[in-house]
Amino acid sequence: MPARWPVRLATVADADEVAHLLDDFNTEFDAPTPGVDVLAARLRVLLAGEATVVILAGSPAVAVAVVTVRPNVWCAGGVALLDELYVVPSLRGNGIGAAMVAELLSLARHRAVDLVEINVDEGDVDARRFYERHGFTSTEPGSSERAIYYYLELSS
Amino acid sequence: MPARWPVRLATVADADEVAHLLDDFNTEFDAPTPGVDVLAARLRVLLAGEATVVILAGSPAVAVAVVTVRPNVWCAGGVALLDELYVVPSLRGNGIGAAMVAELLSLARHRAVDLVEINVDEGDVDARRFYERHGFTSTEPGSSERAIYYYLELSS
Repeated sequence: MPARWPVRLATVADADEVAHLLDDFNTEFDAPTPGVDVLAARLRVLLAGEATVVILAGSPAVAVAVVTVRPNVWCAGGVALLDELYVVPSLRGNGIGAAMVAELLSLARHRAVDLVEINVDEGDVDARRFYERHGFTSTEPGSSERAIYYYLELSS
Repeated sequence: MPARWPVRLATVADADEVAHLLDDFNTEFDAPTPGVDVLAARLRVLLAGEATVVILAGSPAVAVAVVTVRPNVWCAGGVALLDELYVVPSLRGNGIGAAMVAELLSLARHRAVDLVEINVDEGDVDARRFYERHGFTSTEPGSSERAIYYYLELSS
């Protein structure tokens, strides 16, 4: 059980710690990262605003979840997207990810969010099972139709 | 060419017109809709804010796109998600959808957006081709890995 690593919402004061975890995340998965200092500067802005929520587990933190909340015309409440979920490698399998998702859903209900979303790599069977266990689905009731995530990067 | 239906950004004054198009959209595709009055009331709030942008084509409008913009820790600019794109049935095949996407990309560059996203039904081959023609991709360079959209509806 993750009682040793209680979940909490990050504040601006946690920006450096969040930045380190996110930098470790992308480094582990060979994804580009702008580095800890750039991330920490952005996080100080984002954590002071309403649209971004960061969940941490433990102190010092051993897991991070980044969530963005946005409005949607089809529901009275908002939509929350789980942008990132990372647990340090040595502590995986301890239920920390599950505790983070539980906190996300609790937070979503508290904020009157109607829909929680996440994009999961098709081949990442473990992650897909993990989210399905928590009630997420990729198809609508009575349909086998899934939606595929498409993106376009704009060069600045 | 869509010169007969010039694209423009909706303002609060367009809320009723946008609501009618979105209601027609969901009615055509047998999706639930809260009705024109509820949508119009929400749109008056959303169109006054920063996070939601609505693109219209023509006057009276014959097409609508709803876009939400949110921050992201990995990029300096924001991320724009194309939530909805609808062209009235009688005018499809006239390049209006393409003009709306061009306006979306122009708007995104203007707003320093780094990434534009859309979730497309896997079986909707026409829509997937349409977005791929406009430069969208579902896989990262050198990979065949796609991401699947998962969601969880919270009952209020």
